[in-house]
Amino acid sequence: MAGEAPKAGRILRAPENFVDSQLALDITSHGLNDQRRSFLRKSFLAAGAAMASGTALAQAAAGGDPAILKLPEHSTSLGKPVASTPYGLPSRFEGALQRRESPGLTRVNAASVSFTPLQSLFGIITPSGLHFERHHQGWHDIDPSQHRLMVNGLVRQQKIYTMDDLMRLPSVSRMHFIECGANTAMEWGNVAVPSVQYSHGMLSCSEFTGVPLSVLLEDCGYDKKTARFVLAEGADGSGMTRTISIERALDDVIVAWAMNGEMLRPENGYPLRLVVPGVQGVSWVKWLRRIEVGDQPYATKDEAIHYIDAMPDGMYRQYTSVQECKSVITTPSAGQRLLDTGFYNITGLAWSGRGKIKRVDVSTDGGRNWRTARLESPLLPKCLTRFNIDWTWDGAPAVLQARAIDETGYVQPKINELRAVRGTRSIYHNNAIQSWQVAASGEVSNVQVY
Amino acid sequence: MAGEAPKAGRILRAPENFVDSQLALDITSHGLNDQRRSFLRKSFLAAGAAMASGTALAQAAAGGDPAILKLPEHSTSLGKPVASTPYGLPSRFEGALQRRESPGLTRVNAASVSFTPLQSLFGIITPSGLHFERHHQGWHDIDPSQHRLMVNGLVRQQKIYTMDDLMRLPSVSRMHFIECGANTAMEWGNVAVPSVQYSHGMLSCSEFTGVPLSVLLEDCGYDKKTARFVLAEGADGSGMTRTISIERALDDVIVAWAMNGEMLRPENGYPLRLVVPGVQGVSWVKWLRRIEVGDQPYATKDEAIHYIDAMPDGMYRQYTSVQECKSVITTPSAGQRLLDTGFYNITGLAWSGRGKIKRVDVSTDGGRNWRTARLESPLLPKCLTRFNIDWTWDGAPAVLQARAIDETGYVQPKINELRAVRGTRSIYHNNAIQSWQVAASGEVSNVQVY
Repeated sequence: MAGEAPKAGRILRAPENFVDSQLALDITSHGLNDQRRSFLRKSFLAAGAAMASGTALAQAAAGGDPAILKLPEHSTSLGKPVASTPYGLPSRFEGALQRRESPGLTRVNAASVSFTPLQSLFGIITPSGLHFERHHQGWHDIDPSQHRLMVNGLVRQQKIYTMDDLMRLPSVSRMHFIECGANTAMEWGNVAVPSVQYSHGMLSCSEFTGVPLSVLLEDCGYDKKTARFVLAEGADGSGMTRTISIERALDDVIVAWAMNGEMLRPENGYPLRLVVPGVQGVSWVKWLRRIEVGDQPYATKDEAIHYIDAMPDGMYRQYTSVQECKSVITTPSAGQRLLDTGFYNITGLAWSGRGKIKRVDVSTDGGRNWRTARLESPLLPKCLTRFNIDWTWDGAPAVLQARAIDETGYVQPKINELRAVRGTRSIYHNNAIQSWQVAASGEVSNVQVY
Repeated sequence: MAGEAPKAGRILRAPENFVDSQLALDITSHGLNDQRRSFLRKSFLAAGAAMASGTALAQAAAGGDPAILKLPEHSTSLGKPVASTPYGLPSRFEGALQRRESPGLTRVNAASVSFTPLQSLFGIITPSGLHFERHHQGWHDIDPSQHRLMVNGLVRQQKIYTMDDLMRLPSVSRMHFIECGANTAMEWGNVAVPSVQYSHGMLSCSEFTGVPLSVLLEDCGYDKKTARFVLAEGADGSGMTRTISIERALDDVIVAWAMNGEMLRPENGYPLRLVVPGVQGVSWVKWLRRIEVGDQPYATKDEAIHYIDAMPDGMYRQYTSVQECKSVITTPSAGQRLLDTGFYNITGLAWSGRGKIKRVDVSTDGGRNWRTARLESPLLPKCLTRFNIDWTWDGAPAVLQARAIDETGYVQPKINELRAVRGTRSIYHNNAIQSWQVAASGEVSNVQVY
C-alpha cells in the first residue's frame, strides 16, 4: 500500500524526510563507493518521479540539483544532549495521550476513576504514567522512611516491617494485569460509552516486584490450624480493607514496592501495595499498612456493601473477586476512523483471572464467523495477552468482536448470555464480548450486538 | 529481623504509620465486632511496648489513650484527585533516581552516554524515563506526520512509508534487552568505576512493538537471489548507518514505533527505530529513515572505524555485533552499604544475545563456591532475566559474583580469561564476570578478582 498513488482521503504528503535521507547519505556515508552512490542517485530519481509534483523533491528530481533541497533541522543540527531529561517523558506530539476521568461519574474526583487510553497503547505493558487510577479518598505521596507494614492477628509473633526490612527479603518479579471490578460497567445498561478508554480503561498491566505474602506470613508464624483469611488494610484516609483467603494469600499474592522496574508511583500505592493476581483491583490495597490473619471473612464495608453483584432476583453476590476471562479489540475501536479501505492489523488484549489465555478468536461480521488471532509472547498467567490478526476492509459496514478462551476452557460470553444469568442491574464484573461497528464512512462506534 | 530490638546503625524509627493504622481501623472498619477490636487494641499495646520510647506511639502505649495520638496527614485528609497528573511521574522521594552522564567521557554531551541506574531498579522492564542514551549528534523530537521510511536497493519496488502506512501492517510485540557495545568498557583497563550504573548502565530492556522488517522486505520484493545485507540509516545529523545480514533482517528484526506500551521516547528514536535483538545498541538505528538492500557489507564509518574490537596483535575485529552472555549483581553493588549483618536478597540481571538464559550461579567468596540462583519469569530469548538468591551476611569481608550460562551452553568468562584472548586495549564487548567486594564495614566496592 505504501508509496502507491495517492487515494481519496489519504493524500501522500511530500516525503521531506526522504529528501533528507538521500542528501545525508551523500554527505555522511564515507564507506560507499562511487558505483553504489550512482545507483542510489538513480533510485532516488526513480522514486522522485513517482511522487506528487510541486514539492521540493519533485523540483530536485527535475532539476537534478540536490543542493536546492532544504534539509529539516533535525538532520543538520546538533540535537539535545544526553541526560537533558534526567527522567524522560513522551514526545511533545503525544500530549493527547493521557489517562482521563469521566466527568460526573462520582461526586468528588478524589473518589473517582481515571481511565487508561488503551486505544493508543501497544503490547502488554502499561506505561506507569498511564496506569488507571481508582481512589476512595484521593492519593498521597507517602515518605517511605516513615512507612510501616504490620502483620498481626493469628500469628505467633506480630511484626512491624520498615521498607528496608521488606526489601531485604526474598523477592519475586511477575507480570500481572489489574482490572477494576467495575470495568466495563456502563455496558450492562446499554450505555455505549464513546471509546475503549472509557469502556475498558480500568485495566492496566505491569511487572511487579516484592516479597511474597507467604514469606511474611511464615516469618510471623501464622497459625496453620486456625488461619483461614487475611485482611489487607491501606494507609490512606479511606482505610481500604479487603479479605483474602489464606489459600490465595499463600499462593501468588505479593507485597509489592516496585512496578515496571521502579518504585511504585504514588497514585498506585507508593511505597507499598498488595498485588493479588487475577483478583479485582480493589483487593490490591494501596499504601498497604497492615495484614491481619483471621479465621473468618472480615465483611468490611468495602466488601460487604461495595463491589457486590446485583442479581436479577434482588439478591447480591459478595466476594466475587476473580476477574473472569475477557478480551477487547483496542484498534480499530470506537472513536477511531479507518482512513481508507485495504489492509489493517486488528489488535487487542485478552486476560483471565484464572490463568493463561489459550486462544482468541476475532469476528468481523458480528459473531457469525470467527478466525483465530496470533498471540504475542510472553503468554503468562493472570497477565494481559496481546493478540493481532490481519484484516482487509472492503469498505462495507462491519462489526468487530474478540472472544477469549482461557486455559480452564472458559469461553468469554456474549452480552445477552451474561445478562440471562446476571440481569442488568449489576455494576461489577462485566466480561462480555465487546462489539465495535465500522460504518461505510470508516467511523468506528460502540454498539451492542446480541 | 523485622520488629526486633533496634541494632547499632539500624535504629527502628517510631512507626507512625502503625499508629495511624490502628486508629483508622477503629474509625473505619465497620465490619469488625467488639471482640476483634478489643484483640487489636491489645496487640497494639503489645507492639507499642516493643518500640523505642519517647515517641507518640510509646506515649500512647503508656497512657493507653489513643485519642492523644497524632495521625499523619495522609490518613486523615482528602488526597489528590484522579488524573491530577494526566501523565504520572515518580514520587518526590525518588528524585535521585536518574540516568546520569559520566562527566568528561566525551568532548560534547550531545555525542555522549547517559547510564541507567540499575542499582535501584527491579524486575526486567526498564522504565522508559530511565532508558540509557547514546547519541552521536544529540536527539530530536521529530514530527511523526512528517517522518518517512524508505526501503530501497535490491528490491522489485522501492517504497516510502508514512507512519500511518507502517502502523496498519501486521505487528509484533516482544521484550528484548538493548546493550551498548561499549558497556562495561572501563573494566578492560582496571578502572573500577564506582557503581553498577556506570559499569553496566548502558543496558535497558523493554517491550517493543512494530512491524517485522521481513514484512517490509517482502512488501518491496527484495531480491532473494542477490540480497545479502541491509543498511539501516537514521535521520539525525549523524546519519547513523549499520549493516545487518539478510538472515538476521528476515529473522527477528523489528521496525518499532512503541516501547513499553507507548510510542517511543524522542531520545530513544521517536517515531521509529530498528530493534535488532541480541545485537549491540548501535545497530538499533534511531529515527530510522531508510533501509537499503545490498549484496555486500556497507563498511560505513560507524562500523568500519567505530565499534571495532582492538585485539592484542594490533588488528581489529569488525562486525562483532552480538552481545555475548553476561550477568551482573545489581544489589548489593558498588556504592551501596549493608546496614547490618543478617539476611539479604542478592539480585541481578542476566542476558545473552544468543538466546535464553539457562542458569545463573552466584558466589559470595570470589568464585570459589557457587550456588544456583532463582530465575524469575518470563524467561525470554535475547531479553533480560532477573535472578534472586538468599544470602546471610556474617559480617566478614566477601566478594560477590554472578556467572550466567545461556542456552547454547556458553559460560560467562572471568576477566582474566577474556583478557587472555582479547588483550586490554579493547573498548567493546566486555562480558566478564563482575566482582563486588563487601568490606567488614558493609561498604560495597568495585574490585577485579582473577
